[in-house]
Amino acid sequence: MRRWNGWGETTTTMNLSDKATTMLLEKLGPGRPQQDVEQQALLAAIPPSRLPAHPLIRTDPVVRLSVALGESYPDWLRKRCGTTPTVPDGVSYPETSEQVQELLAMAQLADWIVIPFAGGTSVAGHLDCPVSPRPVLSLNLTRMNRLLHLDTVSQLATFGAGTAGPVLEAQLRAQGYTLGHFPQSFEYSTVGGWVVTRSSGQQSLRYGRIEQLFAGGRMETPIGTLNMPTLPASSAGPDLRELVLGSEGRFGVLTEAVMRVTPLAGHESFHGLFFPDWDAAEAAVRQLVQMKLPLSMLRLSNAIETETNLALAGHANLIAWLERYLGWRGCRNEKCLLMLGLTATPATARHALSEARRVTRQHGGVYIGRSLGDRWAQNRFKGPYLRNTLWEHGYSADTIETAVDWPRVKPLMLAMEQAARDAFAEDGERVHAFTHLSHLYAQGSSIYSTFVWPTAAGGYDANMARWKRYKAKVSEAIVAHGGTISHQHGVGRDHAPYLAAEKGPLGMATLAELCRHFDPKGIMNPGKLLQDGGPWNV
Amino acid sequence: MRRWNGWGETTTTMNLSDKATTMLLEKLGPGRPQQDVEQQALLAAIPPSRLPAHPLIRTDPVVRLSVALGESYPDWLRKRCGTTPTVPDGVSYPETSEQVQELLAMAQLADWIVIPFAGGTSVAGHLDCPVSPRPVLSLNLTRMNRLLHLDTVSQLATFGAGTAGPVLEAQLRAQGYTLGHFPQSFEYSTVGGWVVTRSSGQQSLRYGRIEQLFAGGRMETPIGTLNMPTLPASSAGPDLRELVLGSEGRFGVLTEAVMRVTPLAGHESFHGLFFPDWDAAEAAVRQLVQMKLPLSMLRLSNAIETETNLALAGHANLIAWLERYLGWRGCRNEKCLLMLGLTATPATARHALSEARRVTRQHGGVYIGRSLGDRWAQNRFKGPYLRNTLWEHGYSADTIETAVDWPRVKPLMLAMEQAARDAFAEDGERVHAFTHLSHLYAQGSSIYSTFVWPTAAGGYDANMARWKRYKAKVSEAIVAHGGTISHQHGVGRDHAPYLAAEKGPLGMATLAELCRHFDPKGIMNPGKLLQDGGPWNV
Repeated sequence: MRRWNGWGETTTTMNLSDKATTMLLEKLGPGRPQQDVEQQALLAAIPPSRLPAHPLIRTDPVVRLSVALGESYPDWLRKRCGTTPTVPDGVSYPETSEQVQELLAMAQLADWIVIPFAGGTSVAGHLDCPVSPRPVLSLNLTRMNRLLHLDTVSQLATFGAGTAGPVLEAQLRAQGYTLGHFPQSFEYSTVGGWVVTRSSGQQSLRYGRIEQLFAGGRMETPIGTLNMPTLPASSAGPDLRELVLGSEGRFGVLTEAVMRVTPLAGHESFHGLFFPDWDAAEAAVRQLVQMKLPLSMLRLSNAIETETNLALAGHANLIAWLERYLGWRGCRNEKCLLMLGLTATPATARHALSEARRVTRQHGGVYIGRSLGDRWAQNRFKGPYLRNTLWEHGYSADTIETAVDWPRVKPLMLAMEQAARDAFAEDGERVHAFTHLSHLYAQGSSIYSTFVWPTAAGGYDANMARWKRYKAKVSEAIVAHGGTISHQHGVGRDHAPYLAAEKGPLGMATLAELCRHFDPKGIMNPGKLLQDGGPWNV
Repeated sequence: MRRWNGWGETTTTMNLSDKATTMLLEKLGPGRPQQDVEQQALLAAIPPSRLPAHPLIRTDPVVRLSVALGESYPDWLRKRCGTTPTVPDGVSYPETSEQVQELLAMAQLADWIVIPFAGGTSVAGHLDCPVSPRPVLSLNLTRMNRLLHLDTVSQLATFGAGTAGPVLEAQLRAQGYTLGHFPQSFEYSTVGGWVVTRSSGQQSLRYGRIEQLFAGGRMETPIGTLNMPTLPASSAGPDLRELVLGSEGRFGVLTEAVMRVTPLAGHESFHGLFFPDWDAAEAAVRQLVQMKLPLSMLRLSNAIETETNLALAGHANLIAWLERYLGWRGCRNEKCLLMLGLTATPATARHALSEARRVTRQHGGVYIGRSLGDRWAQNRFKGPYLRNTLWEHGYSADTIETAVDWPRVKPLMLAMEQAARDAFAEDGERVHAFTHLSHLYAQGSSIYSTFVWPTAAGGYDANMARWKRYKAKVSEAIVAHGGTISHQHGVGRDHAPYLAAEKGPLGMATLAELCRHFDPKGIMNPGKLLQDGGPWNV
């Protein structure tokens, strides 16, 4: 069963090694475990629904609560500290595009607000429900969860938009194919969510971002259906798929997605390499990606993250032995770990690995084989479970990510970590900040920073205030360095204040105009992407 | 000097081999050479300009004529048969974004129509000038033709939008880089034109289409400047670059383009392979592209194009010898020629060629080395010169292209050729139609058909009527098979009637809304992309 107030299945727990516990104590001081609230307490505070009875709409509080919260830190606090969020007045579970059409028509007529929902994994406030005189209807798309068609000649698979990662991959793998899209939220997030938030998966170096995988489909909007036919490429005017990508429920509801799939590769492996320091490592990965080598993943941890990951790994004796070996090879306190993925035919994988080893050697890289890589692959979706464990130990965890051109990658990485340290220092607190690059491009890289700090005494309000301050400081650092406010999580409510910095005034006006065009009555997910909704209860 | 009424430099002429002349005679009967009109006759018929005198605007007829015509077949007829087109009232040559701004403001105030111009290579009527009570101003961007900035760390180069292919590549190559974008119009077409018409280059398999190369830039619109910052990737809402790509001068004028460039590869070569027939060849290239082999080009000619190319090649004895060898290896009357490009490090190129030879052998492919490939590379931009020569021999030439998913590639290719044959047959005429696939994707392929027919006696009107009928028939075949109305030439006026078939009614309404948003007074290039301009004089 999925946890109602934390990440993942109740049967799965990630434990902290002794070494990790010690490290947290050293770096942050003791955690402050909080008393979790019972779900019943939240449910009791939910006001009656304002929606009329309708066979397609459920209004029981437990269902309404289930679509009100994602996985952002504010969402987490609401679940754990017992502040009932504003919740939708009802939830419908459409099974067809026509039902979505019908519900949108009804909502438009009755002046309801509509918030699309599927995996519930947003970490950017996409699911926040406004405090509004208008009733709010959640469209839960998880019943549109099937492979509808597979064309093996064109390698195109059509899915209901609410199909979650594991079901999607299982249906494809049964026929020898994969989409190859593996965001860390893979267990729950859905293909429709990936598309409308412009998601990216761990092996995007081979498979591409969701933009490259999304071939067409169907979006139901308040003013009609947008059919996007599949074409391998076209010069016939602006690409309308690119408006759907990143639309975050503002223009309509994506109901079907045609995706570009790939036959399962003959070979897949993940390899570990260490570098003496960041500069050497960054130069090496930049060269690898700019030479267009057919790799499937590059994931470079900075020195703090490398140290943290080695502490989390357990197996203290083995790690100590590894560190002695690395020290002898020149990789000591500033060492950085690179995970390198190969997914290809065996011949291409051999060629790519041999080239990658040749190039990385020139930068002082030390190849250590597959053991750390295999371990990473085994636990690739387990990271979010650590947040549960950390919380129980009295620590909070959050992540912030961006992307920027190469010359600004290191300065921005340092600035993000420093901004967080400064924000917490104002409170007399410490934060443990560490970073990796997970999506590399010839032009630049994503930057993915994790922040761990002792949870504040004082419950929801104290912790929200602290989060808001740190989130603002780090976001401002991103904007100041010309980074995007999100490389893979989307905008939602949390990033909306920073969007204008990259879109510009005319770009923002264009997005607002598109909202008015597709949604003249303003019913679709207000306040997300653009700052036009609200008020909000936080 | 560039020909005023035909393709290319006056110093370059492509001759027809005896074999090619014989083939045309056999397939089409004798040509009907026409008497070309003198430029002076066209100039004499140009009415006085309706624009006021302005230091930034030139109004002499020769300059006005120079921006009125592209390279479509209707444009060709106007130049050769002496029907003066409607021409803009004046031409300005802005040198900065600010001058473009100023000119747009002036045009908006005075209610002039604005048509952007640069390379003048459109083959889809992008430059057609409407018959309008409003004066028409052409913005000739060819003075914005420099490399403005090169960031070798992020591999980004900023260009003035009017920079033509040869100047762009020369400036990059001087520093060891290439954009790698080589459309057949490369000699004259410009980076801004490539972007706003969603162009594709011959080596797009390595470098990507212009969509992948366009990292950001600046568009001046009637309501302000759209600045597009460079980001390696972003999930922050819809990608506004994708509105500029394919906008065809409807939303504004692209003035600066930041492009993703690549260091020159250590190895480049082009190889020839023959297949016994189309089905074998198509299966082979589909497998090559779907296995993501690092090739830079695949270009597959059907049997008629293969026969035609061998006839055009001259060297009758050598070709006869080659055909005997191929016959012995199973490639006879239905044989199809594949050109395969390698652009990579020497190691990757070796690996890719060895894999490609292994795979193609399984489909009956016969590798014949580099001689035909080298010849192709040498003449890669010469194809359009043949149109001059054919015209002088009394034949007309035109091309139509599309892209479609794999299962429909062969049926659509056959349908396009047949539609043309049917259209000309109604007139009691023959057409020589042949096709290649030049841009291959895992999902499908572009289809590029060339049509040659005897020019009609009866000058402009007779030939236009014939072209319109055949163009409509082939375009209808494309639409009926679900192809895009253009894979690489854009929409312009000629393809606008067919755009709704792929964009749908809501998609068309969205494009119209975007036009109103960026250009509330409707001054920007009316009638292109959408069918809202006119009337027209043809």
